[in-house]
Amino acid sequence: MKDVAARAGVGLKTVSRVVNEEPGVTPDTVARVQSAIDALGFRRNDSARLLRTRRTASVGLVLEDLADPFYGALSRAVEDVARAHGALLFTGSSAENPRREQELVLAFCARRVDGLVVVPAGDDHRYLTPEIDAGVATVFVDRPAGRIDADVVLTDNAGGTRTGVAHLIAHGHRRIGFIGDQPGIHTATERLRGYREAMADAGLPVRPEWYAMGPTTPERVRAALATMLAGPEPVTALFAGNNRVTVTAVRVLSGRPRPVALVGFDDFELADLLDPPVTVVAQDAPGLGRSAAQLLFRRLDGATSEEASRIELPARLIPRGSGEIPPAS
Amino acid sequence: MKDVAARAGVGLKTVSRVVNEEPGVTPDTVARVQSAIDALGFRRNDSARLLRTRRTASVGLVLEDLADPFYGALSRAVEDVARAHGALLFTGSSAENPRREQELVLAFCARRVDGLVVVPAGDDHRYLTPEIDAGVATVFVDRPAGRIDADVVLTDNAGGTRTGVAHLIAHGHRRIGFIGDQPGIHTATERLRGYREAMADAGLPVRPEWYAMGPTTPERVRAALATMLAGPEPVTALFAGNNRVTVTAVRVLSGRPRPVALVGFDDFELADLLDPPVTVVAQDAPGLGRSAAQLLFRRLDGATSEEASRIELPARLIPRGSGEIPPAS
Repeated sequence: MKDVAARAGVGLKTVSRVVNEEPGVTPDTVARVQSAIDALGFRRNDSARLLRTRRTASVGLVLEDLADPFYGALSRAVEDVARAHGALLFTGSSAENPRREQELVLAFCARRVDGLVVVPAGDDHRYLTPEIDAGVATVFVDRPAGRIDADVVLTDNAGGTRTGVAHLIAHGHRRIGFIGDQPGIHTATERLRGYREAMADAGLPVRPEWYAMGPTTPERVRAALATMLAGPEPVTALFAGNNRVTVTAVRVLSGRPRPVALVGFDDFELADLLDPPVTVVAQDAPGLGRSAAQLLFRRLDGATSEEASRIELPARLIPRGSGEIPPAS
Repeated sequence: MKDVAARAGVGLKTVSRVVNEEPGVTPDTVARVQSAIDALGFRRNDSARLLRTRRTASVGLVLEDLADPFYGALSRAVEDVARAHGALLFTGSSAENPRREQELVLAFCARRVDGLVVVPAGDDHRYLTPEIDAGVATVFVDRPAGRIDADVVLTDNAGGTRTGVAHLIAHGHRRIGFIGDQPGIHTATERLRGYREAMADAGLPVRPEWYAMGPTTPERVRAALATMLAGPEPVTALFAGNNRVTVTAVRVLSGRPRPVALVGFDDFELADLLDPPVTVVAQDAPGLGRSAAQLLFRRLDGATSEEASRIELPARLIPRGSGEIPPAS
């Protein structure tokens, strides 16, 4: 910094003013200091500055998988809000592993992020209490926190699924299958609940062989679907619990002679160009990310009450063809 | 730290050993210190530590758009390599804006990242020279740096496109269109070059109305395609310059009575289930991210020469149906 001051022919205080973008320096002096900085390769030492100010203007985002299009859209929305607040984004994938989620969250806290947006993999977030008490704003998104009271932004998973399954029932189906994600995942159990409620509302039984919960790998989805479609009372329609399940179901069902009706949770690109076009219950991935990030920055601005907020976004049925196929007789 | 030591009944040095995960502490003592830390909400102050050690164990990734599936897959691969090296990831989208790219890169440098992986939006990266001289390892990916000599990992864009266009020519097409991204983007101009070379190799002319470069918005792609398909000598086949173009082209062509052959650069999910299934020239998005990140960490380990590396990954033709449609007579 002394070298910059000497080269620019100004005092140390002036260099400091320019670097910290404080007023009271003429444009000409700013330009002189700037070119001295460029010439010397000086970099403002943010780490040193962090020790003196409270905020780091960075936010940590922990989600399941950066490569999943659903989380890609959510991430981009969080990034846009963070950018509007001048904050940078750390991102990390938990790969549905609670230990990895905790490692990432604590690593971000050790970097003194101002706040966290977390798609939780685990169901016990008491490990976060010291961080939250120390002032790290935290908003959960897509799934609620476990065993702590924290802000959360969710989709109406049960309601959306109930609507989708009721739609299949309205088109004449009585034996309807459900394939969901692992039972430890909040969205998966909520959607299963919506399925059960829609069936109960219509006075229909749910046989144990009609629903399956587990990892959404193609192998697992194929096996679950084969079980539901076999036997004396095969399902005539399927509700797919998320876009990973839907994609495999589309693949399996396209190879079968008898049409099986399909409604999937989550919209996906080109769903409308498949044969038949895929009926979905769409959730608003950018809306989830945006709402969570906005809530986070409202917390950071102190513009909210002490109470934890719970925001629930609706899911929307988009009929396109696959969900309107009548039962094969 | 003194409070932690007092509470755990150990010396300050032992607390320091536990926090820095150094050997020589019994598991029982580690547990005691850990629970004292938990009870007191103590957090290791990484910012202070940064001032004393060289590495920050963080890497910045700048790409075009976190919400684009191609970059989602690339990001996840960079993250996996960073994680294997114990590093956290900053991510940011340039939205194809050179100024925004520079802002992000310099903001990451101000946070003292060890290295950068950059999908460049701009064509002049001299602004990075002071950072690189100051020791920030930098690897460009998907597109090369402009006006500086830097490591880069690319796909063979021209070669892949030449193969795809030659495939259309081999199926009898003589009037072939090309819709690419903005001409300032390296991958877009390289693919245009591959198209021109394949046409020249076959002794075919390229009419000005047969190719169009610009933003890959649906409106722009629709308009460009309408121009190519109109007039007395309409194209009978299209090479789509990236997955955004392909998706819109599939949509437009599915609504037309006369089939038009289509080959797209980039593979995408469900391409094989469309009608007709879409022939693509696939690039390896995770491979690009992985190679770039591995090169970055080799640089950080000092295990490389001073020379800038250039790695080129092949693109692969996957015939599925749309690229094998003969010209409408």
